[in-house]
Amino acid sequence: MRLVLFPYFREIFETIKKDKPLIHHITNYVTVNDCANTVLALGGSPVMADDLAEVEEMVSLASALVMNVGTLNQRTIEAFVLAGKKANALGTPVVLDPVGVGATALRTQTVQRILEEVQLSVLRGNMSEIKSIYGQGGKTRGVDSIDDSLMGGREIALELAKRLNCVVVITGATDIVSDGEQVFYIENGHEMLSRVTGTGCMTTSLIGLCVGTKKNPFHAAIMGTAVMGLAGEKAYEALPHKEEVGTFRVKLMDAIGSFSITLMEESVKIHEA
Amino acid sequence: MRLVLFPYFREIFETIKKDKPLIHHITNYVTVNDCANTVLALGGSPVMADDLAEVEEMVSLASALVMNVGTLNQRTIEAFVLAGKKANALGTPVVLDPVGVGATALRTQTVQRILEEVQLSVLRGNMSEIKSIYGQGGKTRGVDSIDDSLMGGREIALELAKRLNCVVVITGATDIVSDGEQVFYIENGHEMLSRVTGTGCMTTSLIGLCVGTKKNPFHAAIMGTAVMGLAGEKAYEALPHKEEVGTFRVKLMDAIGSFSITLMEESVKIHEA
Amino acid sequence: MRLVLFPYFREIFETIKKDKPLIHHITNYVTVNDCANTVLALGGSPVMADDLAEVEEMVSLASALVMNVGTLNQRTIEAFVLAGKKANALGTPVVLDPVGVGATALRTQTVQRILEEVQLSVLRGNMSEIKSIYGQGGKTRGVDSIDDSLMGGREIALELAKRLNCVVVITGATDIVSDGEQVFYIENGHEMLSRVTGTGCMTTSLIGLCVGTKKNPFHAAIMGTAVMGLAGEKAYEALPHKEEVGTFRVKLMDAIGSFSITLMEESVKIHEA
Repeated sequence: MRLVLFPYFREIFETIKKDKPLIHHITNYVTVNDCANTVLALGGSPVMADDLAEVEEMVSLASALVMNVGTLNQRTIEAFVLAGKKANALGTPVVLDPVGVGATALRTQTVQRILEEVQLSVLRGNMSEIKSIYGQGGKTRGVDSIDDSLMGGREIALELAKRLNCVVVITGATDIVSDGEQVFYIENGHEMLSRVTGTGCMTTSLIGLCVGTKKNPFHAAIMGTAVMGLAGEKAYEALPHKEEVGTFRVKLMDAIGSFSITLMEESVKIHEA
Repeated sequence: MRLVLFPYFREIFETIKKDKPLIHHITNYVTVNDCANTVLALGGSPVMADDLAEVEEMVSLASALVMNVGTLNQRTIEAFVLAGKKANALGTPVVLDPVGVGATALRTQTVQRILEEVQLSVLRGNMSEIKSIYGQGGKTRGVDSIDDSLMGGREIALELAKRLNCVVVITGATDIVSDGEQVFYIENGHEMLSRVTGTGCMTTSLIGLCVGTKKNPFHAAIMGTAVMGLAGEKAYEALPHKEEVGTFRVKLMDAIGSFSITLMEESVKIHEA
Repeated sequence: MRLVLFPYFREIFETIKKDKPLIHHITNYVTVNDCANTVLALGGSPVMADDLAEVEEMVSLASALVMNVGTLNQRTIEAFVLAGKKANALGTPVVLDPVGVGATALRTQTVQRILEEVQLSVLRGNMSEIKSIYGQGGKTRGVDSIDDSLMGGREIALELAKRLNCVVVITGATDIVSDGEQVFYIENGHEMLSRVTGTGCMTTSLIGLCVGTKKNPFHAAIMGTAVMGLAGEKAYEALPHKEEVGTFRVKLMDAIGSFSITLMEESVKIHEA
């Protein structure tokens, strides 16, 4: 399995290093700095712009658009739609992070609207967020109506990817990535990643950078997700004392900045589900 | 004195670890990431949301509401009031950080409006901010009209707590905490805390997390304040060279993330004033 | 050359330490925390405020105004102009960072409007940004119409400084600073500075702090720029492994926080162009 995917990963990484793709973010003000530094650390070029008067022009310059609804407001909601449509018109990949969808009606409706008006390349969320979106399909069911024992992450990723016609990434202890036909599990990462805010957002930005190479978005989504998992492991190994969340965060950025395909070939744990 | 309070501190900390209280922040974009990471480091779950269309719903999910006026604007001012009233209606504790009150009329009027329309559980500011609020009471006096030599922090905290019917925390070299009946001094902390932006905001978030346990807000406010002081001391001890403000900030997060009641029992310096 | 400027640098630094100048920022939400911590680390006092209802009052309290258009929106654009005019009326220095000017019409028009309505003390950008502004003068030419081989950075800085009647700083591998009469090159810095987001914004904030001393703005702009270059070198020297972008960022803040005139006298590489 690995042998099949590695050449694609290598090509994506070499394209990043060569082209430094510009990744346009419309994102939240909590983790925005980490998203920018993450993209920069792996070799891309981040730009943040959210005013209605410039998002279409900015996305025209970009290789991918990352939309993150973490601290959405009435102004940025319109920017999501406007920028997303423009990206679609240009054939520029769009990645969505539906932060907190299901928690409030505003988030649920905004994500629903984006899904209706914008064609995504990749959707990335945690299990709770993805289940919330999955549950709204057609019947607008609540999250709780999904029976976890019958309907696991594998099926949700697969079916949602088919329904939305995009790659779906569910991050967690095991990451699940599907393009609607295949499903891969990624077993990298470390529990400490959940003790730093924004590691989900940063994963979405890494995916945005990888799809910004215009290579196969399924491979790009797997790669972006795996980079964060591998960086988390490497950061933890580099911790002198194991409970240091502040130092872990610094080492995480170090690890993203020194990522290599060799590390990936040695340590990534990907298998088809 | 210590023996009286320690069981309460232990109960608050164990509740945090068990329940991971969700702390809804409406806060500034300068220190918001540090506030989120601080809450996460001590064991809580931060969420930031400030749009009028979702703050009431978000605060309904939360265990406490932290309001910080650091970069207030016309949109967020209405969000403070709306979320604060909803929190009051639900019996959810509200903590206010009146950043820069007294510096501009907008801040002074906004804080005044919040105090009139929202019942706080805890108000935390530095001496200058608390004096500004104290001075406005009834006679809307300016800060400078307060005679420091006659009216010290102890009296201000005590009387303001009585007037506002909430706990008042004045942070500084010595932190002062009052519920309108008792006053405690906390002598922990380190001067380096004043060389990193947002340590005041982070203290407010820690207090928000502690009151989010729904235990006695006076104990919770003392505990949240003491955690930051103790973390500051521990971070400074861990500095290889003593002038490193960047490293200090990292170690501060490490110290919050590895906080324990044992450390508190050994090192906290609290006494009744 | 050094001997001529050092007494001015020393005076600026001593004034910072003595007065802790308040630096009012209207800036982007990506790098705002780094800007605040940078100002604090060198000895100043940062404040961020962008609502139309308070920017005039806040700038009245400040020693300098830093305007950074990184994530501009319709609301903050008006705040730039309002605060800038007020600063002019008060004789308070204004520093502008035209982030991304030339990338979108909104940025180009906003920067143009600021330049028409506000008298700057210092303009700081990278070569691409400064060329974009330079090209718009009078004939509103596009960036690409400038012939780099005939028109180098030295001439652009010199002529733009003359035209705008302010100090112009072009940061890059070699930093170029001109007041319209003289041009200085600063050869400090390290390539790693380009691998951390916001080092340009932070340089602008350092310049803002230095001009906030109300000393000669040309000297202040040189000093602010040199502090970042020297800190970048020192941070790189302190890196255990040379590829660590996260650790570099921490060490960078350490280096700014322990900056000394002695270091500057020993290591700064400034010469007239």
